[in-house]
Amino acid sequence: MENILQGDERLDYLLAEKLRIIQSPSVFSFSLDAVLLAKFAYVPIRSGSIVDLCAGNGAIPLFLSARTNADITAVELQGRLSGMAERSVRYNGLENRIHIVNDDVIGIASKIGYEKYDVVTCNPPYFPAQEASDKNLLEHVAIARHEIRLTLEQAIQSANELLKQGGKAAFVHRPGRLLDIVTAMRASRLEPKRIRFIYPKEGKEANTLLIEAIKDGKPDLKVLPPLYVYGPDGQYTEEVRLLLYGQDG
Amino acid sequence: MENILQGDERLDYLLAEKLRIIQSPSVFSFSLDAVLLAKFAYVPIRSGSIVDLCAGNGAIPLFLSARTNADITAVELQGRLSGMAERSVRYNGLENRIHIVNDDVIGIASKIGYEKYDVVTCNPPYFPAQEASDKNLLEHVAIARHEIRLTLEQAIQSANELLKQGGKAAFVHRPGRLLDIVTAMRASRLEPKRIRFIYPKEGKEANTLLIEAIKDGKPDLKVLPPLYVYGPDGQYTEEVRLLLYGQDG
Repeated sequence: MENILQGDERLDYLLAEKLRIIQSPSVFSFSLDAVLLAKFAYVPIRSGSIVDLCAGNGAIPLFLSARTNADITAVELQGRLSGMAERSVRYNGLENRIHIVNDDVIGIASKIGYEKYDVVTCNPPYFPAQEASDKNLLEHVAIARHEIRLTLEQAIQSANELLKQGGKAAFVHRPGRLLDIVTAMRASRLEPKRIRFIYPKEGKEANTLLIEAIKDGKPDLKVLPPLYVYGPDGQYTEEVRLLLYGQDG
Repeated sequence: MENILQGDERLDYLLAEKLRIIQSPSVFSFSLDAVLLAKFAYVPIRSGSIVDLCAGNGAIPLFLSARTNADITAVELQGRLSGMAERSVRYNGLENRIHIVNDDVIGIASKIGYEKYDVVTCNPPYFPAQEASDKNLLEHVAIARHEIRLTLEQAIQSANELLKQGGKAAFVHRPGRLLDIVTAMRASRLEPKRIRFIYPKEGKEANTLLIEAIKDGKPDLKVLPPLYVYGPDGQYTEEVRLLLYGQDG
């Protein structure tokens, strides 16, 4: 396969070597959060349609493709990243199931369709825009991590516009933003139904939040068992090892 | 001590036999939730003033008296329960530190003072009012457990009215009401800062929520480590045993 990699890109393994993904240490590498969200999100198994917003190099769509035969549309604003995602999808022979759209998440429903989708996943920029300007970050990294081109509220609004009634929106974010997320979701017809907190290890505060809402759902929130990333031995816990390397179901 | 007990009341031990509390199987017994809240809540150690709303038979004020020398005011609508609390306070010789007020939580600040208190704790009725009428409950139990005479929003409003700026409100409730709690708190100038979820045991969904907010605080929510009530052996975990029977600090 020619020209699959550019610059300092690498072809990394995903999910116990069943899939490969193009990454670049200087441009973008997926994080554990993407893996956690791809596993947490409800997906229809046999058919249906899914949109992943802020898709980056396509980690979540690739992970989801191992769990579902649904059509997956991946929306990524940055052409450099959507290009990596596109090449990864081709490398894995998934062009018929994963469609990469290089476009803005804001207003995306006007281009790919209103209220047509069963599931929206999103691993949005986590950090306030003003912090990015202090840090002299590379532009790709700054846009992917900071709310420069997309706020949390805008991402949630796009999820609402894309989802059918009864469709599900799954987001990953920081626990410090929980109140903003639930407030914005409720303001966008998305009723939070399942939350899971991720703890780096026992005895520490949660550092990651998984949340799933149902469009026009009834209020009835469940807080799932906690997930610990590292055990007392400093190694990944069994649950995380399974997510990263093991079978998916 | 004469006439300390009425009807089917018992004198139970609290906190490794340092304190005693009057309970009645038919009228009111405190729950683990009261113990959890009394331990979770921030309290000033040497001085200050605390209000416990929906005080029932006074379990939370009694527990708090082991952690703080602050003045504690306990507000309970039902005279039958506030009477039990009063007798328990007398039995423990705490009349100079715990004051029982037999009154409605709604509007209580107009009687005991606006914006005078450092901390408000509250273990409110958990269940919707309409469920009580289906169940043919004893009136005392129905009022203590169901939102018949006090809604969550009213309890939060009273907490706001009582608290100084920078004061803390600590509530215990069901996780299913998380969104209602945080919405009502933010609408009452109470910014949620710490949340802890209680799980009956590993692998189960959370069944209790502890939440602390600061009046006019800055948004910055922390999600504390989970607490499990029962271990794999079906016995209380070490942490819960310490709360129930061990030293308090």
